[in-house]
Amino acid sequence: MSTKQVINFGAGPAKLPEEVMEQVQKELLSHKNSGISVMEMSHRSAEFAAILESTQKLLKDLLKIPTNYKVLFMQGGGTGLFAAVALNLISKSGTADYIVTGSWSAKAAKEAAKYGKVNYVIPKTDQYLTIPDPSSWKLDPNASYVYYCDNETVHGIEFPFVPDTKGVPLVADMSSNFLTRPVDVSKFGIIFAGAQKNIGPAGVTVAIVRDDLLGKTLQICPTVLDFNILDICGGKSLRVGATQWRNSWDG
Amino acid sequence: MSTKQVINFGAGPAKLPEEVMEQVQKELLSHKNSGISVMEMSHRSAEFAAILESTQKLLKDLLKIPTNYKVLFMQGGGTGLFAAVALNLISKSGTADYIVTGSWSAKAAKEAAKYGKVNYVIPKTDQYLTIPDPSSWKLDPNASYVYYCDNETVHGIEFPFVPDTKGVPLVADMSSNFLTRPVDVSKFGIIFAGAQKNIGPAGVTVAIVRDDLLGKTLQICPTVLDFNILDICGGKSLRVGATQWRNSWDG
Repeated sequence: MSTKQVINFGAGPAKLPEEVMEQVQKELLSHKNSGISVMEMSHRSAEFAAILESTQKLLKDLLKIPTNYKVLFMQGGGTGLFAAVALNLISKSGTADYIVTGSWSAKAAKEAAKYGKVNYVIPKTDQYLTIPDPSSWKLDPNASYVYYCDNETVHGIEFPFVPDTKGVPLVADMSSNFLTRPVDVSKFGIIFAGAQKNIGPAGVTVAIVRDDLLGKTLQICPTVLDFNILDICGGKSLRVGATQWRNSWDG
Repeated sequence: MSTKQVINFGAGPAKLPEEVMEQVQKELLSHKNSGISVMEMSHRSAEFAAILESTQKLLKDLLKIPTNYKVLFMQGGGTGLFAAVALNLISKSGTADYIVTGSWSAKAAKEAAKYGKVNYVIPKTDQYLTIPDPSSWKLDPNASYVYYCDNETVHGIEFPFVPDTKGVPLVADMSSNFLTRPVDVSKFGIIFAGAQKNIGPAGVTVAIVRDDLLGKTLQICPTVLDFNILDICGGKSLRVGATQWRNSWDG
């Protein structure tokens, strides 16, 4: 129980459920009677593998994530993913489409421009008031992917529909509305979300990545933002991949 | 108190002091009687600024860090810093010297080679048994920096001295021996360390950066690995720099 009643409207880091916090508190010094804290646990231990796999399974069940998607837990927040998306995906044609409807997608487009050509699908503006009708969008059929932010918190624009990209992989930043409603994951190439708004404490970013999009990473991608390595290290291959993990990341 | 006595020799994530864990546990749902958890707290709040500034101050006092150094708290672990060091520093001459004495410095050198020319100061080997005498080292006077790992945990090589680089900035990975003994910080350009071995839970990496090394970041550096932006966001300018933070990172 809190010592006093406080109402926290923070958009993120946001309020966490009290029953979750109480369980964390209870097990802080001894995770499942292991005698050690989850914070002291080896990332190569069976206990950690069980946490990782059960968290992935819960998310897969909740969002009905198809089997050809990987669930990755990363660091770096939305800003880290702005870079990771381009570093991992833009090499296919060297260009990407950005539907910029607020400051978050504007930042994502600016970050992607470090790694390839960014095509602005709708006219640039500083006043984000609406989503222009899709019939007016200038999509590039050769784009490596189409990017948008499903809910722009600063400017208040939320998509009431999933953009039709005519087969080009769709990347969505769902940081601020992740798990607030059902989503047909099969319409997306990548969905990502910082945990701190809706699902957990700051520090973790969830990325749901369709597996055919792996393997196109630019050579200049930092290891910590490389979806392929994170998949090897954190995926089902956690235990069988221990040697690869040790060789490719570790520490 | 733990439910049973367990001895945890994990090198990292490692055991945390029980009195620290008990304080964390006690304040988990209400940080300093604020009524909210530290995990639910805005990164723009006065409470968070106080935590950040006091942690920086404690580290500055403990290591006697000179005033011309920045203390940055980053994500990505040692592997993130392997990239960040090169992305932030290698542009000066396009080359860097690596003293490779074990698997960690070997990985760092491999990561840096994504961003510039890496000069191996001592002969390459798979059997790391000793530190060759410095008189045999092939240091490049034009190197942007000289890199080494102060303690190679896998292969057991620890430096009993600080390398003399003839004025070239020295970068040290001290992940596994950070805060185990006094260090003359003024001899270093950058010292970094993953928190999980000696000073805290996994997830945070400390970087101590001499301020004249800021401002040379490659244009392709992801925002989350850019020392300059982290300094603006997390330094003394936390509050006055709130607009810059909002514009450059946020989330």
